[in-house]
Amino acid sequence: MGSVFSISIRVYYEDTDAGNVVYYANYLKFMERARTEWLRQLGFEQDELSRRDGILFAVRSARLEFLKPARFNDLLQATARISRRGKASLSFAQEIRRDDVVLCEGEVKVACLDTKRFTPRPIPENLGLKIAAWT
Amino acid sequence: MGSVFSISIRVYYEDTDAGNVVYYANYLKFMERARTEWLRQLGFEQDELSRRDGILFAVRSARLEFLKPARFNDLLQATARISRRGKASLSFAQEIRRDDVVLCEGEVKVACLDTKRFTPRPIPENLGLKIAAWT
Amino acid sequence: MGSVFSISIRVYYEDTDAGNVVYYANYLKFMERARTEWLRQLGFEQDELSRRDGILFAVRSARLEFLKPARFNDLLQATARISRRGKASLSFAQEIRRDDVVLCEGEVKVACLDTKRFTPRPIPENLGLKIAAWT
Amino acid sequence: MGSVFSISIRVYYEDTDAGNVVYYANYLKFMERARTEWLRQLGFEQDELSRRDGILFAVRSARLEFLKPARFNDLLQATARISRRGKASLSFAQEIRRDDVVLCEGEVKVACLDTKRFTPRPIPENLGLKIAAWT
Repeated sequence: MGSVFSISIRVYYEDTDAGNVVYYANYLKFMERARTEWLRQLGFEQDELSRRDGILFAVRSARLEFLKPARFNDLLQATARISRRGKASLSFAQEIRRDDVVLCEGEVKVACLDTKRFTPRPIPENLGLKIAAWT
Repeated sequence: MGSVFSISIRVYYEDTDAGNVVYYANYLKFMERARTEWLRQLGFEQDELSRRDGILFAVRSARLEFLKPARFNDLLQATARISRRGKASLSFAQEIRRDDVVLCEGEVKVACLDTKRFTPRPIPENLGLKIAAWT
Repeated sequence: MGSVFSISIRVYYEDTDAGNVVYYANYLKFMERARTEWLRQLGFEQDELSRRDGILFAVRSARLEFLKPARFNDLLQATARISRRGKASLSFAQEIRRDDVVLCEGEVKVACLDTKRFTPRPIPENLGLKIAAWT
Repeated sequence: MGSVFSISIRVYYEDTDAGNVVYYANYLKFMERARTEWLRQLGFEQDELSRRDGILFAVRSARLEFLKPARFNDLLQATARISRRGKASLSFAQEIRRDDVVLCEGEVKVACLDTKRFTPRPIPENLGLKIAAWT
């Protein structure tokens, strides 16, 4: 489980708070953008997964360590690596970095759910195979 | 059209930005909270209006003047006054104040829409009568 | 360590996402509102702590379990209980509930920092005593 | 005043609300991202303008028309065109589009302010010349 996916994220005023740093809850958003773009480059669009397969991915748990502050106008990297593959869930080890410095570390578990009933659903096979191949 | 409705809003870190002031887009949220609570004290809950009457109110236009900054931990007042009543829309004159000082002035127009088709719908009669009586 | 502090939080459109539920990152905001109001009822305003004592509280780590969704217009309770008192940090066990149902559980650790240098600072004695008495 | 600057913006869950559309206040954020990137491609970073020149740009007023909804996963364009150049302020005509369809139209006025005193300051000459040349 070694492949790492990464995107760039620019910090705008909307992301900051009066402590003159990125508001900590926003790192969850940055990590989600990375997971979304990772899924896209595997060939899967979440609106299609919802319409066609009737599934969505919902965050079930998160663990975050805020190590150093990011600031307005910083250009950050948000990474995603799969740390655990389940039948109906995925766990991601993620980082928010500025160059070589890790600012925030997270472990995020997402569950594959039925869009209507919000109950667990196995990850569709074609998606599961792509994920296994990428990992 | 003179009645004024008002609620108190506390400024938390989540509302601020690195300029050490409330992030300007958040005044739109504060104004919406005031409109929501105004509707509630008239006896109307928006989730019921959606389920039972099949309508929702969507913001169609907004005009905002940012006069003075609000800051972390301020206790603000968000006001709402009806400036125009239409068949399928309402316009509100709104203010965000700290005591006697107006920090932000807005004019917000909301349209009554069909929840499914997002097309204009007349404001339900019982709601329209309550609004007319309050105004 | 048994005392529990609680505030009410109304869910507005601003808090929701296209899954028709409260966007999960926003539970961190709700938990912060509870910690802020808890500090206020102990007699401490964070803007004063910053100006007078030169300290601020920054979130160092968070662990969140998202159990059930909250929805638009829900009236929620956000609770805070101290789970660990350090010299320069506090850990909180927190819940977001709708009546008797726990929707989200969290453990949030905050550090007392120097506002300028962002380095750890002991919690001021008068505040520490109040916290100990409350806990 | 004809030059138009444009950036692409992907809609994530964080941007949407329970109406299954982009939350209207977020269009102000999208428009700000376009203005920030426009300034960057002129060669000006806002954190440098703050440190070196002691100025920041603050939004003074906004007028927004919400024409059609944007949805989760949409790829949008945010445009910026200068509609008025003042000594200490700039007005922008902006659009949020999905391909050829205009979803939101805005007019945003920003003032050049002293970072410390929040009082108006003339736009620095080198920046003013670049803006004039671009416009």
